Amino acid sequence: MPLIARIERALTTHLEHLDSPNAPPKLIKAIHHAVFPGGARIRPQLCMAVALACGDDAPELTDAASAAIEMMHCASLVHDDMPCFDDASTRRGQLAVHKAYGEPLALLSGDALIVQAFLCLVRVKHIHLERSMELMRVVADSVGAPNGIVAGQAWECESRVDLGEYQRAKTGALFVASTCAGAIASGADPQAWRGLGEALGEAYQVADDIHDVMGDAQQLGKPVGQDAQHGRPSATAALGLTGAIKYFERLIQRAVESIPAGPGQNSMQILVQKESERLVPRQVIAHSLALSS
Amino acid sequence: MPLIARIERALTTHLEHLDSPNAPPKLIKAIHHAVFPGGARIRPQLCMAVALACGDDAPELTDAASAAIEMMHCASLVHDDMPCFDDASTRRGQLAVHKAYGEPLALLSGDALIVQAFLCLVRVKHIHLERSMELMRVVADSVGAPNGIVAGQAWECESRVDLGEYQRAKTGALFVASTCAGAIASGADPQAWRGLGEALGEAYQVADDIHDVMGDAQQLGKPVGQDAQHGRPSATAALGLTGAIKYFERLIQRAVESIPAGPGQNSMQILVQKESERLVPRQVIAHSLALSS
Repeated sequence: MPLIARIERALTTHLEHLDSPNAPPKLIKAIHHAVFPGGARIRPQLCMAVALACGDDAPELTDAASAAIEMMHCASLVHDDMPCFDDASTRRGQLAVHKAYGEPLALLSGDALIVQAFLCLVRVKHIHLERSMELMRVVADSVGAPNGIVAGQAWECESRVDLGEYQRAKTGALFVASTCAGAIASGADPQAWRGLGEALGEAYQVADDIHDVMGDAQQLGKPVGQDAQHGRPSATAALGLTGAIKYFERLIQRAVESIPAGPGQNSMQILVQKESERLVPRQVIAHSLALSS
Repeated sequence: MPLIARIERALTTHLEHLDSPNAPPKLIKAIHHAVFPGGARIRPQLCMAVALACGDDAPELTDAASAAIEMMHCASLVHDDMPCFDDASTRRGQLAVHKAYGEPLALLSGDALIVQAFLCLVRVKHIHLERSMELMRVVADSVGAPNGIVAGQAWECESRVDLGEYQRAKTGALFVASTCAGAIASGADPQAWRGLGEALGEAYQVADDIHDVMGDAQQLGKPVGQDAQHGRPSATAALGLTGAIKYFERLIQRAVESIPAGPGQNSMQILVQKESERLVPRQVIAHSLALSS
């Protein structure tokens, strides 16, 4: 089964618990709106690809970890789009949750998704209790304070911000959790896969900064120019557009080189290169480098 | 050690992980503002009292569960006070988090507290992995959808609401989780303690409705008249003030009778009676019943 189909199935399965006659119907709809249709699902893809490279001997745990990570990501998008942050009207090419269902249900569906993410890991058959517990620790650390997504977003409320710290928390942490979780789900050492998550996470954030400057809102599925508008630190502000593109290329190179030797090395390198092309197409890089030379 | 001192110590210990030089300082301050000083800490008191009645053979787990439950409660208060819900300016006698730190940090500190609650249970020494996992399930179910606090708050966004369903989710669920978690932390059967949590949860909600009609904002530490102002279903709206007070008395009686026989029965009955007097003082009951007779 292709990774993306397996991810959609895992998400659907782990959200089925919400379909209760006792549940408030609009909340359940808002949660589904936040999760489907998805974006690139790059974080759960990474988690599953690493798990497969490590043998994937507990596929239900891999599915649960991948679903949990994507739910955390979706929760962060829903809250980030709210009026008190980006006040973004669109996300993934459709109305943002707060625009479709109102602010109260946007806030609550984000909260529910955070809790649901943990429930994915709690409800899976517990053949490997230690792995489940370690997965929860890794996912929780990557979302909460002091070093996860929430801390990353909170840096936007500080007057003095370290760009690296901000990006590591806001974007990098969940990428690192994705690669580490794939390893943990399969009983492998997560440290060997940390470097891949770190390099890809930073590459993804730099790509996002690049798109925010030069992107097409329709293609991106969300508004552009948000960083400058909100005075947020960004790689393009720090390095210029060409500098940011060069830095992105170096990060992808670092990601490829960090992949541990083994049976999954080749397919993982292909996934990283494909993702790199999707994030910043080669023609954009060539065009930018030609202009700067 | 008195329960309340043990709870404050558990909360302090489990929030120490946030004090990192890499953490955004305002977020950490906002989280502390949300948790300290506390209200009556009735949920963690219930959890600890049940654990003690069941032998409390894993006190670190009891502490972690109690801290997790109180953090979930604090998170729900922070989000509930935000402008898109109650828009309340005060809480526990001080500024609400969104008034003291702004909406973005209120939203994020609530998110961080939800994650931190799970981390309490993940970080505790894992002598009893099955108990930890079961505690996470019980706490998560009581906060998320379809039956937890988040679902309860989401009923406020529906045009047709069942009062019982709404109150069971918004308030009852975390009370049930509190008594059940105390039993689980000590390796006892949570079902025997479910009735106590249900009766007290409903009593607490009814008392809150009573205070919202007749309360003193300063004594309550938060604004009054919120239910009528927001058109929310309430026991006083359904039964009238005297009817609500009589119903409260029956619920306290049911709570007392539900306490399982055993070494902790007597001290638990005293705790329930003390809490009942704190929630709706006897003079209020006597005055109301005199008026209605």
